[in-house]
Amino acid sequence: MLLLIPGPVQTRPEVRAAMAVDIAPWDRDFFPEYIAIREKLRDIAGGVAGQHACLPLQGAGHFITEAAIRTFIPAQDRPGAGKLLIPMNGAYAERMARLAREAGRAIVALPCTDKRSIAPAEIGAALAADPAISHVGIVYSETGSGIVNDVPAIGAVAREHGRRMIVDAVSAFGALPFDLKAQPEVDAVVFTSNKCIEGLPGLGFAICPIGRVEASRGNAQSWSFDLADVFDTAQRTSWGSFRFTPPVQALHAFGIALDIFLVEGGQPVRLARYRENARILHEGGQALGLKPYLDREQQGPVIVLFHQPDHPAFELQRFVDALKRRGVLISNFHNTAEPTFRVGCIGHVGPDEIRFALGAMRGALEELGVRLREAA
Amino acid sequence: MLLLIPGPVQTRPEVRAAMAVDIAPWDRDFFPEYIAIREKLRDIAGGVAGQHACLPLQGAGHFITEAAIRTFIPAQDRPGAGKLLIPMNGAYAERMARLAREAGRAIVALPCTDKRSIAPAEIGAALAADPAISHVGIVYSETGSGIVNDVPAIGAVAREHGRRMIVDAVSAFGALPFDLKAQPEVDAVVFTSNKCIEGLPGLGFAICPIGRVEASRGNAQSWSFDLADVFDTAQRTSWGSFRFTPPVQALHAFGIALDIFLVEGGQPVRLARYRENARILHEGGQALGLKPYLDREQQGPVIVLFHQPDHPAFELQRFVDALKRRGVLISNFHNTAEPTFRVGCIGHVGPDEIRFALGAMRGALEELGVRLREAA
Repeated sequence: MLLLIPGPVQTRPEVRAAMAVDIAPWDRDFFPEYIAIREKLRDIAGGVAGQHACLPLQGAGHFITEAAIRTFIPAQDRPGAGKLLIPMNGAYAERMARLAREAGRAIVALPCTDKRSIAPAEIGAALAADPAISHVGIVYSETGSGIVNDVPAIGAVAREHGRRMIVDAVSAFGALPFDLKAQPEVDAVVFTSNKCIEGLPGLGFAICPIGRVEASRGNAQSWSFDLADVFDTAQRTSWGSFRFTPPVQALHAFGIALDIFLVEGGQPVRLARYRENARILHEGGQALGLKPYLDREQQGPVIVLFHQPDHPAFELQRFVDALKRRGVLISNFHNTAEPTFRVGCIGHVGPDEIRFALGAMRGALEELGVRLREAA
Repeated sequence: MLLLIPGPVQTRPEVRAAMAVDIAPWDRDFFPEYIAIREKLRDIAGGVAGQHACLPLQGAGHFITEAAIRTFIPAQDRPGAGKLLIPMNGAYAERMARLAREAGRAIVALPCTDKRSIAPAEIGAALAADPAISHVGIVYSETGSGIVNDVPAIGAVAREHGRRMIVDAVSAFGALPFDLKAQPEVDAVVFTSNKCIEGLPGLGFAICPIGRVEASRGNAQSWSFDLADVFDTAQRTSWGSFRFTPPVQALHAFGIALDIFLVEGGQPVRLARYRENARILHEGGQALGLKPYLDREQQGPVIVLFHQPDHPAFELQRFVDALKRRGVLISNFHNTAEPTFRVGCIGHVGPDEIRFALGAMRGALEELGVRLREAA
């Protein structure tokens, strides 16, 4: 079965084989592996040894996002309260807003649509209008619709205005470029094990400037989600101890995925592969008569959405089932206001797999009796 | 390598083999498996269909404990504020107190030592003395020292006083008996995938009375840790959707571990095996001249601790390394006030493995030159 859901992604056989092992997380033999994972992630983020820390956290991407918000933005009823500006251009921006709101953090929702990136000038205007905004919260790659926000340009605007930034890079890290050295305004870039590094789900990571982590002790109002405590606990041992039992199989497999990522050539090579996947999908879907959700210039490399065909025979779950009979698994839900279906471009898949998926899509539409006017 | 750390535990080969697979969590083929896991866990807890819900949460055991505290105990600066009484007889009681305190929940720490269970009468006296206490927070099996608190008897006292209870059953669930039907005072019994059911780490579970979950909406002050939202999200689909990407390999392997647990005879059979493991260890360690941390009548079935020998040649990490060369892995740290070392009795291990571990302990002590006066 070809997983294009997207995330958890299709993994390489040697990565998922690494899950089938009992490991004692506090065993000395595991330390070098754990240290190397954090150093490699820090380097991929453009962080610097001694200046940036890689802080792992058990659980889903929402958890590491909430942890970053709690740690770096004091609650609104606290001294030094922060305020988080979030451009609302997708499902994960909505989720970041909800995570912040429920944690008692003040937010400003900047209206947008999930069909386009936010313009840096829009961020600049919002920051100029409200000096109380301390942070910009930005989703780098919006898995809901497929758009990409220009994190370096938005960061430059935040920096100019003396504000800080939290970057949700869950479906971006490893694929889209990022350079913490050049973006000192960033408090945290957060991501998980099961997206563009092509590991399996179970944990998240935040990469943060150490000085900012140390200055943020006591903010979190949650021991579990306190990244300053994650850091302080790590500091107490030579190997950077985690606090609680980690999903150690997912961590071990992630280390192998990370080695493969680096051997392949790292972020530029991965981005090129995903971009090519997305191009083939975007064009190939149109050739089948499908209408992409995004215009070509807004289409990111991570996921391609199509409008559900306006045809009486189309029903999403039936389409998903028909695709599955052909060996391709896509999501059976959508995160957009309009009815769409989504096909992932990330994971251990290349042009051959994407062309195979397009063939399966053609077959599934035929099986359902959905006749579209195919392009030339 | 024999893992006696204890937890993540030694698993069966067929359980860990189940980790090495890509799974789409929202795939319909996964739904029956996911439903069955939750129903089996509810039944093992003595819950009733339609009255009790099994609520999974990504991450470590601390996360599900914090989620239960946040969901069922309103913060101290909120209307209807609760107050949590915790008998302090071990490292995990300390951790529960810290999780509650940092989440802004009022706590009362009832002094005790980690060498004995708390007496139900002590709980009764504390409840009588402070009518503001809404909840008792109790660790069923204290992994730090090995004692067991009498949860049914303590629950009866809480019930008598009209108070409610949160049970940390992380290293108890599946081994120690529990019957939610007979303990209506319990708001949540929480546990993880990697202890006595003998799965792998990655997620926790809370089993809760549905009425109490519904009455606790809006308490959590954390979207990630809101068990009422976990429940409400599950209610929206026929299969009980999770909210965020789960560690689906750990979930799948846990389902297989659960089937094995039930086929073997469930909780009584597992308890009998662990008890026998603990008995052999407790006696066999003394035969080697080691002094157990707990008296025989306080010794639970999950973990056995020994005082570190008062001998100049003993050093914990060297002892751990020497044991490892003999194929046995134990923890290289302790959670007790006095220096101890700990040997787990849980996981896919029986009397043969425990006797093997005792032989390895004898060899390791000899290698270190630690001569103890062996018992007859």
